[in-house]
Amino acid sequence: GTSNLQMDNSTSLLVSTKHHNHMAHQISKTLLSFFLFVLVLSDTVSSVRINLNKPCKHFILHIHNVAYDADNAANATSSTVVNPLGLGTFDFGKIVIFDNPVTTDENFLSEPVARAQGFFFYNKKTTYNTWVACTLVFNSTQHKGTFTIMDANPMTQPTRDLSIIGGTGDFIMTRGVCTFSTDLIQGQKYFRLKMDIKLYECYN
Amino acid sequence: GTSNLQMDNSTSLLVSTKHHNHMAHQISKTLLSFFLFVLVLSDTVSSVRINLNKPCKHFILHIHNVAYDADNAANATSSTVVNPLGLGTFDFGKIVIFDNPVTTDENFLSEPVARAQGFFFYNKKTTYNTWVACTLVFNSTQHKGTFTIMDANPMTQPTRDLSIIGGTGDFIMTRGVCTFSTDLIQGQKYFRLKMDIKLYECYN
Amino acid sequence: GTSNLQMDNSTSLLVSTKHHNHMAHQISKTLLSFFLFVLVLSDTVSSVRINLNKPCKHFILHIHNVAYDADNAANATSSTVVNPLGLGTFDFGKIVIFDNPVTTDENFLSEPVARAQGFFFYNKKTTYNTWVACTLVFNSTQHKGTFTIMDANPMTQPTRDLSIIGGTGDFIMTRGVCTFSTDLIQGQKYFRLKMDIKLYECYN
Repeated sequence: GTSNLQMDNSTSLLVSTKHHNHMAHQISKTLLSFFLFVLVLSDTVSSVRINLNKPCKHFILHIHNVAYDADNAANATSSTVVNPLGLGTFDFGKIVIFDNPVTTDENFLSEPVARAQGFFFYNKKTTYNTWVACTLVFNSTQHKGTFTIMDANPMTQPTRDLSIIGGTGDFIMTRGVCTFSTDLIQGQKYFRLKMDIKLYECYN
Repeated sequence: GTSNLQMDNSTSLLVSTKHHNHMAHQISKTLLSFFLFVLVLSDTVSSVRINLNKPCKHFILHIHNVAYDADNAANATSSTVVNPLGLGTFDFGKIVIFDNPVTTDENFLSEPVARAQGFFFYNKKTTYNTWVACTLVFNSTQHKGTFTIMDANPMTQPTRDLSIIGGTGDFIMTRGVCTFSTDLIQGQKYFRLKMDIKLYECYN
Repeated sequence: GTSNLQMDNSTSLLVSTKHHNHMAHQISKTLLSFFLFVLVLSDTVSSVRINLNKPCKHFILHIHNVAYDADNAANATSSTVVNPLGLGTFDFGKIVIFDNPVTTDENFLSEPVARAQGFFFYNKKTTYNTWVACTLVFNSTQHKGTFTIMDANPMTQPTRDLSIIGGTGDFIMTRGVCTFSTDLIQGQKYFRLKMDIKLYECYN
């Protein structure tokens, strides 16, 4: 859980003399009520707290996209499903669906820790720009669950922040930001993205 | 800003006289201020609390999908809009748009309580697997509003959890998890899904 | 920031007589612990508070959509990428991708304050109805960041609420509701929507 509030020392207070017994008793009861009340608020029911300076989870992953070119069915991990329509020269209207391997290092051949499933499309006349929806699907002994990234992806910029909008399993109800940077582009065939994932809302 | 908490009275505290009356009075005022303060924090402004053991709303619905086959325009509730491209044999690239009736029981002919509007597509070479975005639209005397489900849907698994990422009206700002299970599949023509809906964040 | 907690005077407390020194000292320690505890809860870690009666940000924008018709490549801001399939007469299955200018007034020629990037599709047999996913991308000296709107858009209704599900930069982790109303429709060529944007969760 996100909250491990320690209040060990703050309870053995209020040493009172005989004179003050009754009043101190009342006060201590009141304070105890407070403690319990605030604890109930904050811990059992998990009051939501966000600290943008300290993600509750932070990790880096790499996503590998091998585009289908009619000859590489065995290796392809994504494919164009709608072709660009010729509005400008930056692929406006092209839609790509993918099921990409996700690894902890940059090696395409490393054992994937997740799949990235989703789609993106090109939507600008004046430059290469995509809009992307992408769910990371974890299904290993270490992690089970999903979270979904969705945002504009102005891919000509060195880094771009995309929203993480929800999740399930180990990532139930999570939210945060994923910073994309392009590791490598090999023509139309292959690209690799670095994902710097910062979750600010965690319940597992 | 969201919080304009005023704590005017909480400053003149704990001046004690030779009797305890004044001090006790001040302490009680302080404690009351605390109560009010915490209440303001937690209630009026609705401090967000999540209890994963106890959804704030929990209900089960069934979604009915009748695929358009060129001969059933009157009954069809969904249609393929982009055909699979032949990458593998599991419909990779096929996109389906739908406006499906949603009922409280399994009967297709029951009065719908909502429509499920959205799309899904197949995105795996090795098995049937979809990615889905689906908004439940309620527009009855009982419920008005929407919420949106979005996630990978590994449909060969008996149950799969999908994120609920937001809503409007009766479901404003809601979040949670929807567990899909396949009730029934009738070839390419019809399928029915059970949706076990657990909302953990509710404001209405 | 969202929290402007003022507690300036709350430290110079606890003037006590000799009799009550110890007890008052203990009480003051306790109260200070409380203050610190509540401050930690509410301020540093930014306990999440939602007030549906008072958005943390509220503004109105206008989105302009110029449909591509093969002859207006210079002006077009959106294009059909998948044609309707003929299920009914309300464009079922038509998919549109856009990169639309967003202005603070209704004038198409005003300097855009953002771009609206995303897609929508028609999904009903019985009336014009769309489902939309749309990211507002701000990249000016005033605002940098994004937020994403996603929901059903029953466009024949005078107003409709759509979920705002997340954001980045100036709008990091934001959520809320965007009320669409149609300002103007000029045949198939142009439409303008008014967006009444209410953010209920803000961290910047």
